[in-house]
Amino acid sequence: MFFHDRRLQYKVRVDKPNPAFARMLQQAIGGIEGEIRVCLQYLFQAWGNRGPVKYKNMLLETGTEEIGHIEMLATAVALNLEGATSSLKDEIVGANPVVGAVMGGMDPRHFLSSGLSAMAVDANGVPFNGSWVVGSGNLAADMYANVMAESTGRVLATRLWESTDDPGMKDMLAFLIARDTMHQNQWMAVLEELGGMTNNHPIPNSFPQAEENQQFSYAFVTTNIFKDQEAFGRWAEGPSIDGKGTFQMVPGEPMGDIPILPPPAPEGHAQVE
Amino acid sequence: MFFHDRRLQYKVRVDKPNPAFARMLQQAIGGIEGEIRVCLQYLFQAWGNRGPVKYKNMLLETGTEEIGHIEMLATAVALNLEGATSSLKDEIVGANPVVGAVMGGMDPRHFLSSGLSAMAVDANGVPFNGSWVVGSGNLAADMYANVMAESTGRVLATRLWESTDDPGMKDMLAFLIARDTMHQNQWMAVLEELGGMTNNHPIPNSFPQAEENQQFSYAFVTTNIFKDQEAFGRWAEGPSIDGKGTFQMVPGEPMGDIPILPPPAPEGHAQVE
Amino acid sequence: MFFHDRRLQYKVRVDKPNPAFARMLQQAIGGIEGEIRVCLQYLFQAWGNRGPVKYKNMLLETGTEEIGHIEMLATAVALNLEGATSSLKDEIVGANPVVGAVMGGMDPRHFLSSGLSAMAVDANGVPFNGSWVVGSGNLAADMYANVMAESTGRVLATRLWESTDDPGMKDMLAFLIARDTMHQNQWMAVLEELGGMTNNHPIPNSFPQAEENQQFSYAFVTTNIFKDQEAFGRWAEGPSIDGKGTFQMVPGEPMGDIPILPPPAPEGHAQVE
Amino acid sequence: MFFHDRRLQYKVRVDKPNPAFARMLQQAIGGIEGEIRVCLQYLFQAWGNRGPVKYKNMLLETGTEEIGHIEMLATAVALNLEGATSSLKDEIVGANPVVGAVMGGMDPRHFLSSGLSAMAVDANGVPFNGSWVVGSGNLAADMYANVMAESTGRVLATRLWESTDDPGMKDMLAFLIARDTMHQNQWMAVLEELGGMTNNHPIPNSFPQAEENQQFSYAFVTTNIFKDQEAFGRWAEGPSIDGKGTFQMVPGEPMGDIPILPPPAPEGHAQVE
Amino acid sequence: MFFHDRRLQYKVRVDKPNPAFARMLQQAIGGIEGEIRVCLQYLFQAWGNRGPVKYKNMLLETGTEEIGHIEMLATAVALNLEGATSSLKDEIVGANPVVGAVMGGMDPRHFLSSGLSAMAVDANGVPFNGSWVVGSGNLAADMYANVMAESTGRVLATRLWESTDDPGMKDMLAFLIARDTMHQNQWMAVLEELGGMTNNHPIPNSFPQAEENQQFSYAFVTTNIFKDQEAFGRWAEGPSIDGKGTFQMVPGEPMGDIPILPPPAPEGHAQVE
Amino acid sequence: MFFHDRRLQYKVRVDKPNPAFARMLQQAIGGIEGEIRVCLQYLFQAWGNRGPVKYKNMLLETGTEEIGHIEMLATAVALNLEGATSSLKDEIVGANPVVGAVMGGMDPRHFLSSGLSAMAVDANGVPFNGSWVVGSGNLAADMYANVMAESTGRVLATRLWESTDDPGMKDMLAFLIARDTMHQNQWMAVLEELGGMTNNHPIPNSFPQAEENQQFSYAFVTTNIFKDQEAFGRWAEGPSIDGKGTFQMVPGEPMGDIPILPPPAPEGHAQVE
Ligand SMILES: [Ca+2]
Ligand SMILES: [Ca+2]
Ligand SMILES: [Ca+2]
Ligand SMILES: [Ca+2]
Ligand SMILES: [Ca+2]
Ligand SMILES: [Ca+2]
Repeated sequence: MFFHDRRLQYKVRVDKPNPAFARMLQQAIGGIEGEIRVCLQYLFQAWGNRGPVKYKNMLLETGTEEIGHIEMLATAVALNLEGATSSLKDEIVGANPVVGAVMGGMDPRHFLSSGLSAMAVDANGVPFNGSWVVGSGNLAADMYANVMAESTGRVLATRLWESTDDPGMKDMLAFLIARDTMHQNQWMAVLEELGGMTNNHPIPNSFPQAEENQQFSYAFVTTNIFKDQEAFGRWAEGPSIDGKGTFQMVPGEPMGDIPILPPPAPEGHAQVE
Repeated sequence: MFFHDRRLQYKVRVDKPNPAFARMLQQAIGGIEGEIRVCLQYLFQAWGNRGPVKYKNMLLETGTEEIGHIEMLATAVALNLEGATSSLKDEIVGANPVVGAVMGGMDPRHFLSSGLSAMAVDANGVPFNGSWVVGSGNLAADMYANVMAESTGRVLATRLWESTDDPGMKDMLAFLIARDTMHQNQWMAVLEELGGMTNNHPIPNSFPQAEENQQFSYAFVTTNIFKDQEAFGRWAEGPSIDGKGTFQMVPGEPMGDIPILPPPAPEGHAQVE
Repeated sequence: MFFHDRRLQYKVRVDKPNPAFARMLQQAIGGIEGEIRVCLQYLFQAWGNRGPVKYKNMLLETGTEEIGHIEMLATAVALNLEGATSSLKDEIVGANPVVGAVMGGMDPRHFLSSGLSAMAVDANGVPFNGSWVVGSGNLAADMYANVMAESTGRVLATRLWESTDDPGMKDMLAFLIARDTMHQNQWMAVLEELGGMTNNHPIPNSFPQAEENQQFSYAFVTTNIFKDQEAFGRWAEGPSIDGKGTFQMVPGEPMGDIPILPPPAPEGHAQVE
Repeated sequence: MFFHDRRLQYKVRVDKPNPAFARMLQQAIGGIEGEIRVCLQYLFQAWGNRGPVKYKNMLLETGTEEIGHIEMLATAVALNLEGATSSLKDEIVGANPVVGAVMGGMDPRHFLSSGLSAMAVDANGVPFNGSWVVGSGNLAADMYANVMAESTGRVLATRLWESTDDPGMKDMLAFLIARDTMHQNQWMAVLEELGGMTNNHPIPNSFPQAEENQQFSYAFVTTNIFKDQEAFGRWAEGPSIDGKGTFQMVPGEPMGDIPILPPPAPEGHAQVE
Repeated sequence: MFFHDRRLQYKVRVDKPNPAFARMLQQAIGGIEGEIRVCLQYLFQAWGNRGPVKYKNMLLETGTEEIGHIEMLATAVALNLEGATSSLKDEIVGANPVVGAVMGGMDPRHFLSSGLSAMAVDANGVPFNGSWVVGSGNLAADMYANVMAESTGRVLATRLWESTDDPGMKDMLAFLIARDTMHQNQWMAVLEELGGMTNNHPIPNSFPQAEENQQFSYAFVTTNIFKDQEAFGRWAEGPSIDGKGTFQMVPGEPMGDIPILPPPAPEGHAQVE
Repeated sequence: MFFHDRRLQYKVRVDKPNPAFARMLQQAIGGIEGEIRVCLQYLFQAWGNRGPVKYKNMLLETGTEEIGHIEMLATAVALNLEGATSSLKDEIVGANPVVGAVMGGMDPRHFLSSGLSAMAVDANGVPFNGSWVVGSGNLAADMYANVMAESTGRVLATRLWESTDDPGMKDMLAFLIARDTMHQNQWMAVLEELGGMTNNHPIPNSFPQAEENQQFSYAFVTTNIFKDQEAFGRWAEGPSIDGKGTFQMVPGEPMGDIPILPPPAPEGHAQVE
């Protein structure tokens, strides 16, 4: 069960409202790298957790913190939209180029649909999509999904930080960037507890290796037919990262037949030549 | 530029066609864990790569291999749908319970829309969505996205393997599972080359640490108000995984104010009390 | 069955074409508050109506009127796009800031995809989505869905009216705003006929009250843990609006256990620690 | 900021796991009538609230309660999926008709993608969509959106209640149905505080009536050309519900011209006859 | 402007209700091959038509007819769902295999969300998507979009016809199949009027041929590297269908360089090795 | 199985980077008229082909070529985004109107999400959608889907050509336009091989004509009630294009009854008046 405190987790201040920046902040709310995604992802992973229970507890903690991040960003969007309406009208009606340069990047739905407040969409107005909420029932796979979410999320936050000179916004983003640092470390700490790379991989580690076709488990297949330069690297030689094999580089070649399907069923009404 | 060989990368054989299994295979084609996603993800990462060029080359190699995996699975779907039409009719029209048990799990669009062939959708007929194709312009973030894709992908493949006793299908899946093993290792090899966890994290590693609010960079914030049992673990004490701080556990508390927004703009036509 | 007259329901005139306004009008065509949604919503409610038949008849009438509203707005979009092409080229190629201020807000697909005509999308180019078409099989719930659609729709129309000084567009919108006034009243008239708030609520009114957990039917649960100010209001005391209980304010507290799920099934290949 | 208690708001017990019922419960989680929608809708309305502040507070209270409802339902889904895996295999592999009858209604992604836990999708696996989160900046419009959400939500809950004979599930649903009763009343209480129907309508009540085309504000336009029976009702005569006009019934007739668009721009490359 | 007659365009009768067939009929309502798509597609093409006006008139006629097809199918869905509720409960609760065989293919949202009526979704519950509504501003391209829509639509209708033995449903489908025959012919008649293949192609025919890179305009590029069998056919030799060139078969070969992108911008925070 | 050459199929050069043009190019990558769609469409049609096998081979050839077109356009997007970051900051922070005119049309996610590279989305950031990938199991229907895709695709490419004066971009587009010319011809050549219009139509040509309701197979139904001008044309008189009937023009009239549905099932909890 959930509770709230009306105060924000961290202060949100906008010194110079900017509706184009409000639009960019939406990416951090409803985009695939955004806070709704991590919030629901951690909570759904917690709710579906089948043990060990300490991971369920931990996911619940951080999932709950993330709701407060959506709240901070939604507040920041609303504050950045202050004054947007009358400027928008100036732009639409009068084609004032200075106003236009600021407003041109605004999401018109911030006025038309939400009345100057945040929405559950990304920076292009594309709605949040529940398919982004990953919880696989495999803890290690989920932890990678979480490291990845916090990595692309922190990349996004640093780009937002670069896009503004508003001191209040920079301060808020410096806090969120720090939280992303922690969260990256936190999910990696679970992976370390689970045994690290050699114990975790290949994920899932519960599938019997004997059942996979081990001839191809550590072969880098090259599909390049322009032979001047190979894609050599750590993945092409030496022990595999999971410690269970040796990388080798092999040219791609077809091992299957040309696939021929049986003729169509009459009920499907294929075309008759 | 791309080329093809009409033969498959690996043999695809279906001994006992099963339209319900065809539906399940669709998850590995057009689902978020599927092959269209990894194929486009690796190719887009390659096409947007701004150096070092060896990673571009490598991404291109594996992205190209993945097209052939879509091809194998699409062939498997078509072969599993063999004979589905007349059985479907028996079920719809006659309510034969034995037929129904097999057909009940079929995607009706496999007959209605595609005429017994694969589609660019998941196991529930939800279309493939381009938002799943992640390429952030940050190589480490992208590698985690790739490890995660191959981890959830391999989890999916092992579950498909568990769901069938068709020898041909088990053989094909054993090959694909092996390729997922390699691909997990391959992306981790890049992360190793980039310097491993202590060098890579926090991602992006190019953002100056001094600019983030470091007071919160390694603090596990607990939001739990039921105090009988804490979410202790590796993330709550000891050196951080990135080697740049020390984990600590701190109770969550609001540091911001109650957010109050200015009154609405008249042009937005808020309600008047 | 449906018929048409080639003339519009109301005159559509654009005095000064404005491609940015064309984009904004798309919200009223293909957005969630738009005319395609109400059109299909009323028609589907009519087609699924299981009595009394007079409501089916009435829904069919207004659903049919709404097709003509899409037509008016689509015409308005095309007229506002007049001349957009060459200005767009000036902007893209030559970076003329005055042109840019007008064009910056244009949807590029209005040129690229539709050749200067309306599309079934919203103001951000997000396609119309059939999930917005609500028909629940419960007449009172549907009437609230309709009041809500016409309320957010009229809010949108007034904001569009505020965003233009084109006399023709203001005239068209003044007509559509009036129709929204009527339609709000119309659906409320059905709710009155059905017995008003005390008879209709809780919706559905056909579920036996004895079967719901009545201890919680009129309790405002407060989840706030910052106790300086309560969320008092009409909902916290006095008779309930449906006349069947008394509002009370109760502090939120967990009545369930900590949920513990059984261990994972082996076939699901969870991670082994 | 948000907090949690690891215990559930209300007890969740499943006596006889049923994967087909798990699928049906997904509609109450990630469907348009579901708890993610109301949760985000109330929270976004709170975060965008521009006064009076008591409504912001109240929306925050109930939005927070709803997170706990998602939690209860996600727990219920996981418990209903207990044992599904091996039965699913029996069905896919062996075509046991009794098993098939239960399993046929299962979402295969509950095994393939989530490992027997809930997902952010509806009963057909269609992902939750952020476009469903309505917050318009007009309090009365938003309250109707909320009454509508709780009305279709309660209809859904009663249908789920009808679809199961599991005592634990019936008990949980009886609690959720009661909460929907309260929430319907709660949003109507706000509408009463705002002045009731005559003060609130037409929404937005801040748009000057003189500016709408009042000739059409209370006219029921009939588009029916089959004249045997009219769609008479409360909406066709008597004072309007908002108390500002008189209903009348008028035959639909075109008042606009046949719309003729100018010829296409050369750059758009229309076809030449 | 639009009008309606409460009677259907053609009779709709269901002799033996079948909820699984109701689900299949949804593909013809809200699927990509369905009637909502053609209805909106023809109407939007009409509303955006910039001449000659006779095509606008004609598109309006048939777009209006299609509304009545949605109506017929929505009625057929509701009639096929008759009795579904109690059988569904038997299935969910009691696992009656005979019932299950019929019900297993039912869309649960037909009960849960719509109360036994049609929805704006396809056979898998995926919502109708406005992106399917094609109107390009080029009449010939649009006519091909329409031929294609009626061709896949008629294929779908014949498969539905094959899936039922209900005389009423077969009769309704025989009518809709005939209408698809007409509509295919109708759009081809426009293409004939526009000048036939040699005049229409390449579409758009208004782009100066001299500006395209004519060396590649009639070359079949083969990308196959398995040289045992070529993809010869009409497209590989002889005069081109548009009469403006001669088909030739050429081996694919790269004519561009290896693409190298400049290094990343510092503000984008790429990873540092 | 697939292979690649690191060189591009055709040279891609950008003389004057333009982030607004980069956004427009996205329509040709991830839009409904774009290269991902045709690529997957031809490949899925090939993989589902059930004979004659020469069409499978041919579809595979061209589907493979299209991967290289995505590659060219993705490269072009990245090159057009060169320098966008610092200009974007100038615009957001400093409201420089000249910069703004260029940047206003930029997709902010090209910086925020992809770090200045292409994404699997359209010009408005709407993700690629797998539902656009049409493969019906009927070869003639699929060929029309392909002609249509190449026709709207070539229309798009000519509009992009008109929108730029960059010589490198114009050269690349002149190549892609030529390929669209070939591909239109190519699919029409298949239609010719299949027998041309009289043999192919009505599609599917395998459904027995006697089973359709032939009274309505060649009747143009007019639904217009404003009788001053009819929609006459080739479709209203003369032999049908498929050579199997004679066009006639008939006034639309309802042949069905007023549809009346049975009362609702009690379990569905309709509203009680
Ligand atoms: Ca966060
Ligand atoms: Ca793969
Ligand atoms: Ca309207
Ligand atoms: Ca609730
Ligand atoms: Ca039709
Ligand atoms: Ca192409």
